[in-house]
Amino acid sequence: MRILVQKFGGTSVAGLERMKQVQGKVVAALNNGCKVLVVLSAMAGETNQLLTLSEQWSETPDSAELDALLATGEQRSICLFTMLLRDAGIKARSLLGHQIPIITDSSHGQARILSIDGERLKKLIEEYDVLVVAGFQGCTKDGRITTLGRGGSDTSAVAIAAALGSVQCDIYTDVDGVYTTDPNLCSTARKLDRVTYEEMLEMASMGAKVLQIRSVEFAKKYNVPVRVRSTFTDTPGTLVTKEDPSMEAVLVSSIAYDKDQARVTMKRVVDRPGIAATLFGALADAEIVVDMIIQNTSEDNRTDMTFTIPRKDLKKTLGVLEHIKHEVEAEEILSDIKVAKVSAIGVGMRNHAGVAAKAFNALHNENINILMISTSEIKITCLIEEKYTELAVRTLHDTFHLDKEHYKEA
Amino acid sequence: MRILVQKFGGTSVAGLERMKQVQGKVVAALNNGCKVLVVLSAMAGETNQLLTLSEQWSETPDSAELDALLATGEQRSICLFTMLLRDAGIKARSLLGHQIPIITDSSHGQARILSIDGERLKKLIEEYDVLVVAGFQGCTKDGRITTLGRGGSDTSAVAIAAALGSVQCDIYTDVDGVYTTDPNLCSTARKLDRVTYEEMLEMASMGAKVLQIRSVEFAKKYNVPVRVRSTFTDTPGTLVTKEDPSMEAVLVSSIAYDKDQARVTMKRVVDRPGIAATLFGALADAEIVVDMIIQNTSEDNRTDMTFTIPRKDLKKTLGVLEHIKHEVEAEEILSDIKVAKVSAIGVGMRNHAGVAAKAFNALHNENINILMISTSEIKITCLIEEKYTELAVRTLHDTFHLDKEHYKEA
Repeated sequence: MRILVQKFGGTSVAGLERMKQVQGKVVAALNNGCKVLVVLSAMAGETNQLLTLSEQWSETPDSAELDALLATGEQRSICLFTMLLRDAGIKARSLLGHQIPIITDSSHGQARILSIDGERLKKLIEEYDVLVVAGFQGCTKDGRITTLGRGGSDTSAVAIAAALGSVQCDIYTDVDGVYTTDPNLCSTARKLDRVTYEEMLEMASMGAKVLQIRSVEFAKKYNVPVRVRSTFTDTPGTLVTKEDPSMEAVLVSSIAYDKDQARVTMKRVVDRPGIAATLFGALADAEIVVDMIIQNTSEDNRTDMTFTIPRKDLKKTLGVLEHIKHEVEAEEILSDIKVAKVSAIGVGMRNHAGVAAKAFNALHNENINILMISTSEIKITCLIEEKYTELAVRTLHDTFHLDKEHYKEA
Repeated sequence: MRILVQKFGGTSVAGLERMKQVQGKVVAALNNGCKVLVVLSAMAGETNQLLTLSEQWSETPDSAELDALLATGEQRSICLFTMLLRDAGIKARSLLGHQIPIITDSSHGQARILSIDGERLKKLIEEYDVLVVAGFQGCTKDGRITTLGRGGSDTSAVAIAAALGSVQCDIYTDVDGVYTTDPNLCSTARKLDRVTYEEMLEMASMGAKVLQIRSVEFAKKYNVPVRVRSTFTDTPGTLVTKEDPSMEAVLVSSIAYDKDQARVTMKRVVDRPGIAATLFGALADAEIVVDMIIQNTSEDNRTDMTFTIPRKDLKKTLGVLEHIKHEVEAEEILSDIKVAKVSAIGVGMRNHAGVAAKAFNALHNENINILMISTSEIKITCLIEEKYTELAVRTLHDTFHLDKEHYKEA
């Protein structure tokens, strides 16, 4: 028995006509000899409508009640979709998170999956040809309904594929795969046939929001082959998978960027042990996610601390800093929201030197000033002035020949 | 610990302002030293909207999927209402049918309650001050969601009161109690302080649709004191309870009527054993509920069979009869939709003769012709021409002095 997991997002199930397209994808898989677990989101807009409603009822809606409220969105879409399938004579039934069950911790609004009863799913998929599962939701051990956070249906789908023995998981979306960079920005962007989990994780965190990042972590952990493809075309999409020898050869596989950045500098902070802990501890307490951090070398026992944050958090950040300014004896606080990050990503970097130098050189040739740099094993990121974003992305895309398949460093 | 069950229907929870009124009722009970189980319906209109939606998706929606779809209506109202309570600092949580659980059979769309985990409810009500329970829904032993049929939230409330040891159950509605007859029809109609389960059952079946009939059966079986009262006033309402000696004195407690009637006669059917079984068997197979039945004495081995049915079923009925006309050798089929039922109801009748005669006499004095008669232990029903309905109701109301409290036969 071959089992396939298919996940469709809110736009794919927004209304009867769209659901019929989804039905077509399910029927194609059945005709291919598969049994299918379909994971659905709520119809597009539904979750936001429920959030708006809850905010009319309460300024700070109780998180457990909000979860049970939001979970009705997926409940509605899976029931309606199952009706369609049964009308077509397909042996199908809907499954809510608590009916499987998908057990999560009790962090309402952003719960983490603890376990999925794979044996029960296997029994059910013997009995039915299609199981239509509510994405985004689970329940605690006590049976209270939880949700997994925005985009959580991706994680539901991958976790279910893992529970079934790491079967194939197709994530249908409104793009037809993962690209070397944003095609809106760079006309030579090319769809990738394959990408590694690690590369996908680096891309996701940079705003290439094709997959929820936690779903990729899950896929990596349980080695679930994930295919990103379009509901509205028949192209094969992009396979997200573990690294294999043929992929190592690819030095850089994609260029990502993120304009949602702000840079903050605390000037001439006193340089003594514990200062960084004080500063970033205060920001963490305010739930501000700090990304890149630079500390200059000390001068007169004073140093500059520079870091980047999501743009929306700038006001909150400045508030926090104002509060601790005295403690860290900062002379001045500077900020800049006209900055952006560009990154070159590729598992091949692990085994090759000179990629960073090549990237810096390419930007320099276009007179793009690099404000900050951070690197990981498979990523080089530069903070630049926002106005150069498009130019920088195209330049790096060209430099690493991403318009051509399987570029290898000579 | 005093426990009170309160049930509010769809109109009472339709929107934020209405829910705040409901909150007032709950807070009043808390201030009275009670712990409260609140049973809510879906917001008015919601269930119908979901039905309409499902009919767009499928001509004959799968009943199990439809139940899971409809159940989201109550899920939304209990979550929103619980948010309100928690905002006000009240220790409250929502409870779905499957979270208690309320176990039902698997007759989707009209499931019957098999059991309720009263011990779990008692534990929860020790932990919380208010439990907000979704009415109308339960689940099968396998955990599939079921619904109890139209008005099922009344039954949910009474069943929960029974499970908690037959505690008081207040059913809030848009009328302020049970009346001696329809006040729109008879200006001297009087609100009853008490009425027996048996009387309520007879009234409910006559269209005095204050309580779902199954909820009254449930209340009778488990001796749950039910109070019918208004969400929008503070009057004490009507207590529905078991018969006690003081109530026996009341001969007739109410006059009910039902205009949703049609009368059908099969003329000169052959009079041999099995004819009635053939006729009413065929109607039962077509799911037509037959109410009053009269069979005249035989003449030339021929007899007339007359019966009443809900008006909407007349066409279907005539179709069925046309089909079996030959078999029963009927000469003619007659029908009349301009008929109505009026009934006098009262537990006191059990011990008194002459009530029927008094009723017939009163109608005769007004020149109202009685077309059919049926009687039970505590009810006398006359079928009359529809145009006399109002006159008949007022006449009977006067005859049995229902405008005055505790009328006793001299």
